Amino acid sequence: MTVYMLGAGPGDPDLITLKAIKILEKADVVLYDSLANDSLLEYAPTTARLIYVGKRAGEHYRKQPEINQLLIDEGKKCETVVRLKGGDPFIFGRGGEEELALLREGIDVEVVPGINSALGSAAMIGLPLTHRAIATSLTLVTGHEDPEKSEKQVNWDYTADTLVIFMGVGLLKKYVPKLLEYRDADTPVCVIENGTLPDQKVITGTLGDITEKKIRPPALVIIGEVVDIYLEAEKLRSKLE
Amino acid sequence: MTVYMLGAGPGDPDLITLKAIKILEKADVVLYDSLANDSLLEYAPTTARLIYVGKRAGEHYRKQPEINQLLIDEGKKCETVVRLKGGDPFIFGRGGEEELALLREGIDVEVVPGINSALGSAAMIGLPLTHRAIATSLTLVTGHEDPEKSEKQVNWDYTADTLVIFMGVGLLKKYVPKLLEYRDADTPVCVIENGTLPDQKVITGTLGDITEKKIRPPALVIIGEVVDIYLEAEKLRSKLE
Repeated sequence: MTVYMLGAGPGDPDLITLKAIKILEKADVVLYDSLANDSLLEYAPTTARLIYVGKRAGEHYRKQPEINQLLIDEGKKCETVVRLKGGDPFIFGRGGEEELALLREGIDVEVVPGINSALGSAAMIGLPLTHRAIATSLTLVTGHEDPEKSEKQVNWDYTADTLVIFMGVGLLKKYVPKLLEYRDADTPVCVIENGTLPDQKVITGTLGDITEKKIRPPALVIIGEVVDIYLEAEKLRSKLE
Repeated sequence: MTVYMLGAGPGDPDLITLKAIKILEKADVVLYDSLANDSLLEYAPTTARLIYVGKRAGEHYRKQPEINQLLIDEGKKCETVVRLKGGDPFIFGRGGEEELALLREGIDVEVVPGINSALGSAAMIGLPLTHRAIATSLTLVTGHEDPEKSEKQVNWDYTADTLVIFMGVGLLKKYVPKLLEYRDADTPVCVIENGTLPDQKVITGTLGDITEKKIRPPALVIIGEVVDIYLEAEKLRSKLE
């Protein structure tokens, strides 16, 4: 009678926490989406039911109210329901909505954080999103706003030193001109496609030229001087034997 | 000849990743600080040397250049050096500085992300730092700026919907007036002390009254409407039998 919202981490299956594994091992049912690494399902007992509730930008997927209802139905039926979500369930994961929907139906919810996709992907390539000298603040923002929000409500004057846009690729062409109102064209940019996975791709450029580069989702867009630290580290790494 | 920077997570030892455990298990030496959970040291081989490089706000601790030098010395001597850092090594952890210092000396560095303290602590109490309807951006900022930065450079006009201040407790009285220039006095605030640990304490209030409450470091200060989601969830939880 408890729904556990587990963060699956950014992609690499070893980036899941011990806490999440221990709960997966006693799951009666696992609801997972395409942002979570499928190999993690192997931790679930062979008797557990596995339900795909696929969610990926641009793809046909179950609507949020449908997922909420499924969680409620399973929560009423089973002892241990696992909702496995890519990254962290509570950062742009709509976990907060699922939590309230369940609690309103009298079903308890426990959240187990996962490595956030942006923070994890950046760290794995050696890119520090903060740096004492050049970046003491970091803003995370989703490129997928609620379509019901008006354009005016979506503001891009983020003042933090480092800015990370989640899954902003399809929308990059739309947002870069807005960002250029507040940041210089030579601001360094790093895009990480399929972060922490074997087919990971890192693309660097500037706010002025990044839209000319070929980028495929799912990707993270990192904007700010910290990208220069990554470039310096990469240069030094290339000299290691 | 590799230094592994491992994120220890927010406190709960089960919030470490499988990847970090696998590396700890083959460590020749582990350099750890007081923000990492000591019980994680049990994953290291009994033959591994354990070096405390304690770092906590206000406490006497080794200076960063001293830690860098220690890492370089161990990196030249040992096959597998582990630098175990609380939270995520690359978010307000000075990991980027340590990375460059090592690479400049020809020592390879690999980073394994950890659950960030703020994201992890908030998720564990059921507080979503983002929410599709009310918070589509999140800013993380450190309350401990480089003392060499002038007051003027420290700006508090962060425009993101949710604002999280790391270890800002001692400085809360100093920063709240600055925050009140940009946010209403009735903006909800949640402070998490010792997040994810048995002695965790959660204090809620508003930007107008939070400085009147008794708060002890280490703590995280969460500011924004998402705190209301937590309050609603807590109310619903209290009704569960």
